[in-house]
Amino acid sequence: MFNTTEIQTLVEALPYMRRFKGKTVVVKYGGNAMINEELKAKVIQDIIFLQCAGMRPVVVHGGGPEITAMLKRVGKQSAFVGGLRVTDEETVELAEMVLVGKLNTELVSILNRQGGKAIGLNGKDANLVVAKKRMSEVYENGEIKLVDIGFVGDVVSVNIELINSLLDLGYIPVIAPTGVGVDGETYNINADSVAGEIAGALKAEKLLLLTDVRGIYVDYRDESTFVSTLTFERAQELMIKGCIDGGMIPKVKACVTALSGGAAKTHIVDGRQPHTILMEIFTDAGIGTEVVKE
Amino acid sequence: MFNTTEIQTLVEALPYMRRFKGKTVVVKYGGNAMINEELKAKVIQDIIFLQCAGMRPVVVHGGGPEITAMLKRVGKQSAFVGGLRVTDEETVELAEMVLVGKLNTELVSILNRQGGKAIGLNGKDANLVVAKKRMSEVYENGEIKLVDIGFVGDVVSVNIELINSLLDLGYIPVIAPTGVGVDGETYNINADSVAGEIAGALKAEKLLLLTDVRGIYVDYRDESTFVSTLTFERAQELMIKGCIDGGMIPKVKACVTALSGGAAKTHIVDGRQPHTILMEIFTDAGIGTEVVKE
Amino acid sequence: MFNTTEIQTLVEALPYMRRFKGKTVVVKYGGNAMINEELKAKVIQDIIFLQCAGMRPVVVHGGGPEITAMLKRVGKQSAFVGGLRVTDEETVELAEMVLVGKLNTELVSILNRQGGKAIGLNGKDANLVVAKKRMSEVYENGEIKLVDIGFVGDVVSVNIELINSLLDLGYIPVIAPTGVGVDGETYNINADSVAGEIAGALKAEKLLLLTDVRGIYVDYRDESTFVSTLTFERAQELMIKGCIDGGMIPKVKACVTALSGGAAKTHIVDGRQPHTILMEIFTDAGIGTEVVKE
Amino acid sequence: MFNTTEIQTLVEALPYMRRFKGKTVVVKYGGNAMINEELKAKVIQDIIFLQCAGMRPVVVHGGGPEITAMLKRVGKQSAFVGGLRVTDEETVELAEMVLVGKLNTELVSILNRQGGKAIGLNGKDANLVVAKKRMSEVYENGEIKLVDIGFVGDVVSVNIELINSLLDLGYIPVIAPTGVGVDGETYNINADSVAGEIAGALKAEKLLLLTDVRGIYVDYRDESTFVSTLTFERAQELMIKGCIDGGMIPKVKACVTALSGGAAKTHIVDGRQPHTILMEIFTDAGIGTEVVKE
Amino acid sequence: MFNTTEIQTLVEALPYMRRFKGKTVVVKYGGNAMINEELKAKVIQDIIFLQCAGMRPVVVHGGGPEITAMLKRVGKQSAFVGGLRVTDEETVELAEMVLVGKLNTELVSILNRQGGKAIGLNGKDANLVVAKKRMSEVYENGEIKLVDIGFVGDVVSVNIELINSLLDLGYIPVIAPTGVGVDGETYNINADSVAGEIAGALKAEKLLLLTDVRGIYVDYRDESTFVSTLTFERAQELMIKGCIDGGMIPKVKACVTALSGGAAKTHIVDGRQPHTILMEIFTDAGIGTEVVKE
Amino acid sequence: MFNTTEIQTLVEALPYMRRFKGKTVVVKYGGNAMINEELKAKVIQDIIFLQCAGMRPVVVHGGGPEITAMLKRVGKQSAFVGGLRVTDEETVELAEMVLVGKLNTELVSILNRQGGKAIGLNGKDANLVVAKKRMSEVYENGEIKLVDIGFVGDVVSVNIELINSLLDLGYIPVIAPTGVGVDGETYNINADSVAGEIAGALKAEKLLLLTDVRGIYVDYRDESTFVSTLTFERAQELMIKGCIDGGMIPKVKACVTALSGGAAKTHIVDGRQPHTILMEIFTDAGIGTEVVKE
Repeated sequence: MFNTTEIQTLVEALPYMRRFKGKTVVVKYGGNAMINEELKAKVIQDIIFLQCAGMRPVVVHGGGPEITAMLKRVGKQSAFVGGLRVTDEETVELAEMVLVGKLNTELVSILNRQGGKAIGLNGKDANLVVAKKRMSEVYENGEIKLVDIGFVGDVVSVNIELINSLLDLGYIPVIAPTGVGVDGETYNINADSVAGEIAGALKAEKLLLLTDVRGIYVDYRDESTFVSTLTFERAQELMIKGCIDGGMIPKVKACVTALSGGAAKTHIVDGRQPHTILMEIFTDAGIGTEVVKE
Repeated sequence: MFNTTEIQTLVEALPYMRRFKGKTVVVKYGGNAMINEELKAKVIQDIIFLQCAGMRPVVVHGGGPEITAMLKRVGKQSAFVGGLRVTDEETVELAEMVLVGKLNTELVSILNRQGGKAIGLNGKDANLVVAKKRMSEVYENGEIKLVDIGFVGDVVSVNIELINSLLDLGYIPVIAPTGVGVDGETYNINADSVAGEIAGALKAEKLLLLTDVRGIYVDYRDESTFVSTLTFERAQELMIKGCIDGGMIPKVKACVTALSGGAAKTHIVDGRQPHTILMEIFTDAGIGTEVVKE
Repeated sequence: MFNTTEIQTLVEALPYMRRFKGKTVVVKYGGNAMINEELKAKVIQDIIFLQCAGMRPVVVHGGGPEITAMLKRVGKQSAFVGGLRVTDEETVELAEMVLVGKLNTELVSILNRQGGKAIGLNGKDANLVVAKKRMSEVYENGEIKLVDIGFVGDVVSVNIELINSLLDLGYIPVIAPTGVGVDGETYNINADSVAGEIAGALKAEKLLLLTDVRGIYVDYRDESTFVSTLTFERAQELMIKGCIDGGMIPKVKACVTALSGGAAKTHIVDGRQPHTILMEIFTDAGIGTEVVKE
Repeated sequence: MFNTTEIQTLVEALPYMRRFKGKTVVVKYGGNAMINEELKAKVIQDIIFLQCAGMRPVVVHGGGPEITAMLKRVGKQSAFVGGLRVTDEETVELAEMVLVGKLNTELVSILNRQGGKAIGLNGKDANLVVAKKRMSEVYENGEIKLVDIGFVGDVVSVNIELINSLLDLGYIPVIAPTGVGVDGETYNINADSVAGEIAGALKAEKLLLLTDVRGIYVDYRDESTFVSTLTFERAQELMIKGCIDGGMIPKVKACVTALSGGAAKTHIVDGRQPHTILMEIFTDAGIGTEVVKE
Repeated sequence: MFNTTEIQTLVEALPYMRRFKGKTVVVKYGGNAMINEELKAKVIQDIIFLQCAGMRPVVVHGGGPEITAMLKRVGKQSAFVGGLRVTDEETVELAEMVLVGKLNTELVSILNRQGGKAIGLNGKDANLVVAKKRMSEVYENGEIKLVDIGFVGDVVSVNIELINSLLDLGYIPVIAPTGVGVDGETYNINADSVAGEIAGALKAEKLLLLTDVRGIYVDYRDESTFVSTLTFERAQELMIKGCIDGGMIPKVKACVTALSGGAAKTHIVDGRQPHTILMEIFTDAGIGTEVVKE
Repeated sequence: MFNTTEIQTLVEALPYMRRFKGKTVVVKYGGNAMINEELKAKVIQDIIFLQCAGMRPVVVHGGGPEITAMLKRVGKQSAFVGGLRVTDEETVELAEMVLVGKLNTELVSILNRQGGKAIGLNGKDANLVVAKKRMSEVYENGEIKLVDIGFVGDVVSVNIELINSLLDLGYIPVIAPTGVGVDGETYNINADSVAGEIAGALKAEKLLLLTDVRGIYVDYRDESTFVSTLTFERAQELMIKGCIDGGMIPKVKACVTALSGGAAKTHIVDGRQPHTILMEIFTDAGIGTEVVKE
């Protein structure tokens, strides 16, 4: 039974629930929050809460470590070009199996056990994510060369009709980050990138990218340099200066993609904190780093 | 910004929100909760929370003390028959003005300021509550005589089509307890009775009657005799024995009416407690006294 | 049983019924037609006829004399500033009770007894009429001073979504001329003004303002100066010259408001004539004074 | 411009308009009313009035004299068997041309010019009227023999889906009395019979059969024997006794068919009177002879 | 039972079925294909196949020879002006009977027997084709004079609302080429012209005009001059040069009308070939002569 | 371009297309037809043809050989109990990856490339297939013992709401045969069994089970004992006698399940024949063995 303080909390949630009613929220789910069982349970609760409170949550998940584990399990040796792993046909086949046949089904299953009506999707469903090969830029002898590193893709187009139909029917779409090429070939795509494209195409109210840091810093060693709001221009500048490191770059780019496409707000938030999704929604100030157009 | 404990509270509300999604909840609002400004604010928040969380709240309000005050203001002297006030034409006209033109508009206005989309109704709107004269039973010379005490009515039928249409459109219907007779005459009706009839006709999931006591006791002087669940039969027995006193009788009867009509659950709860509505919804055990069919 | 002449009349009504099918007609109901029981019965019949013939009637009623009577009944003394009655909190509270809890419910009830499906509304229902304080201009020492005369309001915005939903569902909206301020305070608003705003917002086919004169005259003492069509410009001119007197000014302004908002036609008609509404609809020439854009 | 008396007439029509709103009225149109141009104009007005007042009129027309004229025009000699004309292939072809290509198109055209949205149908449209050969009973040598008189048909089934769809879309269906056999052959069918079948299948509120007499008499020579209400049983009795003569028999049978199928009321009315349709609708007593189940 | 080759054929039809799903195809049906019973049966099959495969077929039929036969049958002598037959009132009445009451009903009937849901229409139904008199240009004494040749009409407007409603409901509209004038008079209109106007107004995917030749030739005596694609400009040129002969001119004009109105493609195809409609649809190259905008 | 013979074939397909329009056809796809690339292409064409011709195809696929290959690839040793492979957690995890992340995505991708709008589903999506552990019956010491062989499941319930919604939206559901237990655990389920349950729940018009034999024989060595129609009773008898061998038993049982659930017809057909699906649909006699209720 709820006590007075708890009921008070519900009542304080009211303005936020009203504000986001009927709005689409895209959550990129990955990193620690996907591995730690306790955090995972809380992410699941958050997503179901969003739906229950009348929002339209869409989940895009990643899968890095699990794919690596699977490659190891079948004894697959990866080639590397300029420091980048080559995603040959066998690799992408295994990646798709892990993403679609393991991580996605598991996430769907947990959401449904908690009372959601989740449905798993991947890039091939009704051509949800059409992709093309991404060439890797390798610096060799002072020159930039484009090297084919296999079935790593960039999003060409997303088909949001299916996503919107499922949301209208009350389902929670859970999307594995694969894409399909014009010849039917499979592509492994960066999940942040997929989330950004989808959030943009859906004109989402919010894109939330869960990471393993608090947000963006000008200097990671100095907590005081934390950036709570980042403009396109400033993001560009920090990337050129090298202040935004490798793993964060696709996240910032995903925010830019989402905003350019039509999303209203984008946030890079700390997935190591429990209930970081609800924390972000139920606050005026916002948490983590918000990327804005200007 | 919500802290972890508060977010945890939201998450714990989830199962209840899921259970009541799309369900109709009729709230009879009266007594202390209608006079005390602080309590009133909390009732308003509760009702808006219900709507925001996807339920279909319907409010029926009372108005006793305000009517009395108005009669006094215009210097109206009431006649009494067998201890009961006679509701003559002038009295019912003033009662209607207070109920519909003051209490109802005020309640609608506050709900709207808090973000609800409330709309005021009364028994005359699209013949919402058709009523007939209630004769008063007076004991005289050892005999029961039926005495005409004027425009006090019993519900003949309720037209839920209008209520359901408004709920479908996202409005919160707020109903003043008047009724209209076949000749267009106005009746003042007991608000508990109106709430019970409407809850039954709507096949409501819950009827919540706010009172100024904790619920029903076998003996009011002995807290340990509190009754948390009351069957029809037991209710009958307690009324005959005189254990259920005057003010509580129409409430118990309203529960019986609601359940007979098709409502699923009925509760007599303590309106003096803040957020008693949410307290009742967000708990497994229930609070106050639940009246059940068997 | 209808005789040949009567049937012929029905047949002659056909072209008008066809022309107005599905069109919205806003009727401002006030003055004599609201006090005289015989005239009232005919107005009710007219409104129901409009609905039955497939039009979408909306009624806005006034209430001046009844409010004055109520103030007297409770012994309320009104203050006057520059000849204008000050509408203090008690006054507006009583006015709202009379308008919403007496005149409106009565009108709704009669319409329903005659077979309409009427529903009463007032400015607070779903924030139907949002208003702000109207300052009175008082000439003092040769200067115009703005004086606060209390809760008399001007329309800030009207929410026609509710009205249209109810019309779509087959109800006749009957509107009491109150408004709600941003802080939830009640305003008494001129009923002509409310009717004009609503007719404009609804893009009504017609606004019919019932008055106690035949229409507008250049000189009231000279019947031959009757004006059957009045342009904006000419109206302005006659008001400046003082040819249009006090009570008629808000009516002419309501027509201007309605036409500017998008209403197609506006008419000031004689409510002392029985069936003046049907008279106006079922005629090519029109009756009373039509106010037109140019 | 309507005067007070005329407006009064409109108002008196109100209860009837309300009663028949949304109801289906099948009119069998034939006889004098179809030949006399003045009467025809009034029938057209009546039908359009019904639609305009919110009813769902369906027209079935006959065509006897025009078919005879056409046969004469092409010099077609008809054979007779036992006094009945044989409808050979050429005859039915000419009948269909006259009914569908002349009378029906003409009626549709006039209705549309008067502002209706009429659409012509015949038995072949979407298999509206499926028919089979009607054998003629001929008395020969004291025995009844079934004689084949060609393409005269009985209704096997009617497809009201098409009629209802067109009514829902706001069209007035105007139906020529032909039928189609299982092998695609054309049948000429008695128009009263088609109207009765359709009225029954549509569960029409009314079937109105226009004739050239006032209604049914026990003895046609004695005006005082006029029958205003006729039960099934009494109809049977009068037919056996020969009181109901030849042309009236299919009309009475059509009423029986309509009522058995589910129509609410059936009337045989005098098509020689102007506006006989509106006369029947706008009266409590009814005109002509009403045929009822019991 | 289908053999492998036949199934293979179905599979090869797949890309065409997909391409034309939901698209409107207007077929002008006339000439040999309408007289020869064998060809007629195949046209019927083609139309039903289109519907069954998800297209929206609309049929417009002609009727020349049958009208001439009917005029002869009633002994009607036609006057001629400048070599053109005068269509007096009697002629247009007979033409309408033949077109609407014979050819149209027959076509509807056959389509329905084969399993279509056809419904016959003509220009008068809901004012489907509004027309005005076409004046004939006669060369007299070296001058062009406009001569009134009676009830031959040009299309003024087509009402596609009815056609689209019927297509949405799953019916096949079969249209006789008549029109109605502002005074309700009937016009006989060239069927190619009606088909062109309707195809344009419907923004049809295809207009197919069935003729008795293979298509258009620069020189009919030389098979090698066959034109498979004809631009507006080239059509103009060939008509001026007299290469496109009399009967073909209205067909080419109908294509121009259709394309100008919004149809996507127009084809003049050989109706003497069995299944010429399906032949045209199920081919990439197209058959006959295609008329294109440029 | 289609020749006359080919067009004739289309026309002959018409009656079948009409009969199956809007009907649901469940195809269990497995065996040779899933391995042989040529056969696979033809199955894909058949399914797309069904959809294009207006049917509602649902595909359930198997995956036996691919799962075995995957187990081998990761070096997984399987335990056996009574001759049956034990499906431990690792095995079911790998099976799910192969079924959902490889075979299902591949099938979806090919269907989409051929122009279908396919969407992959598995038992976990919106709890599509809820399952429970199937215990294996092992004969030991003359007794039947139930042995736990791990995550092999029986269908408890199927949620056809999702399937029907997707069919209504024009998608082809492609279903991997997994199920989800009450605790969220994954089950590998026999694909025939899943297809039978789904066909029954959908009240499918047809269940087609593709196998690697022609159908059912009383004696496989004797072609003349082929059974074209099998009743429930006879099926029971043949199974007891051992005439229906191991692999065929689940297929016959799936037919029984489907028919009991409400499917209209079930067929065991030869998937080694190209276009066996269309062969079955486009024939009166049917191919393979039809299992019927009686």
